[in-house]
Amino acid sequence: MVSTKFINQLKTKYKITFNNPKLLEEAFTHSSYANEHPNDGVRDYEKLEFLGDAVLELAISDYLYRNFPQLNEGELTRMRSNIVDTEGFARFAQEFGFPAEINLGHGEEKAGARARKTLLEDVFEAFNGALFLDQGMNAVEHFLRLTVFPEIDAGNFDASRDYKTDLQEFLQQDGPVKIEYQVIKEVQTPSSFTVQLVVNGKVVSQGNGHNKKAAEQEAAKVALNELN
Amino acid sequence: MVSTKFINQLKTKYKITFNNPKLLEEAFTHSSYANEHPNDGVRDYEKLEFLGDAVLELAISDYLYRNFPQLNEGELTRMRSNIVDTEGFARFAQEFGFPAEINLGHGEEKAGARARKTLLEDVFEAFNGALFLDQGMNAVEHFLRLTVFPEIDAGNFDASRDYKTDLQEFLQQDGPVKIEYQVIKEVQTPSSFTVQLVVNGKVVSQGNGHNKKAAEQEAAKVALNELN
Repeated sequence: MVSTKFINQLKTKYKITFNNPKLLEEAFTHSSYANEHPNDGVRDYEKLEFLGDAVLELAISDYLYRNFPQLNEGELTRMRSNIVDTEGFARFAQEFGFPAEINLGHGEEKAGARARKTLLEDVFEAFNGALFLDQGMNAVEHFLRLTVFPEIDAGNFDASRDYKTDLQEFLQQDGPVKIEYQVIKEVQTPSSFTVQLVVNGKVVSQGNGHNKKAAEQEAAKVALNELN
Repeated sequence: MVSTKFINQLKTKYKITFNNPKLLEEAFTHSSYANEHPNDGVRDYEKLEFLGDAVLELAISDYLYRNFPQLNEGELTRMRSNIVDTEGFARFAQEFGFPAEINLGHGEEKAGARARKTLLEDVFEAFNGALFLDQGMNAVEHFLRLTVFPEIDAGNFDASRDYKTDLQEFLQQDGPVKIEYQVIKEVQTPSSFTVQLVVNGKVVSQGNGHNKKAAEQEAAKVALNELN
């Protein structure tokens, strides 16, 4: 059973109270538990996960589309797949205290399923599916605004985060090279940064972006294109 | 440019009038056209396609979840992937007269892109993305209720529809074979059917399902597993 403590936490931290508490219970019920308790009438989370997967995909796509107008479709797609990811969803599930609430069968419990990332991802999706059924898309978006969206804004899932690493690996093939990213322009509302990339004291490229990290990636990308 | 005839058709057949006609135009603009007309200020459909893909995924998942309560998660997922499919979306695009409206560059036009299924699928997704941005999820669901959902209800995307065909093809490799599906048990509320499969007068397998069709598919599946 989902604990009273958790239910209170949902209410105080995220202003979420389920109209139908059975949906919340279902979101936290693994098939191994449902199989061991056939008379409880509780269903496992798999169908909610099916729905929640699509709910999160749209909520996140919509957010990216509206808030990152400078990205092209390829960049949006890469960024979305960085977010809609086992590792990331499992981490969110952990941060929100989901693991302790999962109804697990004995065998799975002993096998360590409570810490299994794919299971935590499933539960995170199922929870959002349950919230969508209980209160609609607005409620899911409200929850994500308090949790996932700030991390997107902080650049934690930037599509192009690999350009800097790629450039570093390329430049340091034959030994160490000094790589610097310097902010040369910064504008507030709408925020915009220009960064220049300096390799061994020589300016190599510039990049723009909605935050410093994105601008650095852009600069690294430009440099990589010129070098390749 | 999207034709007045098409705009009128959207209005009379589907009760759709875009508040922002630019979104409709964008949904029908291929990158090859946008590249050839840099001064038109028209964007290609790729970002709308990114969004529309997720819009359709949720609209269809939600519909399946609510209307097929007897299906388990695996069956729902298979059915969804039968619907969210290049072939199917391209066919819808064709039925709704989308191909004639696409803004294409000269090279792509000559290369036959107007009939290319992947392009038609893209435009179908982009159209739904544009409708979502212009009028929200309810409008998309209204459009799908008039177009895609009736086909789902008609069983045109049933997850398991291929087993019967597969079995027939397998059995009739060396000439005609008599294949019969006989209902041997029928229960109401919750509805449940048991069917036996009879090949050339010999009972080969049985199948259960929430309706006759599902039970027949199950019987065909069991027989296929035994034969392979």
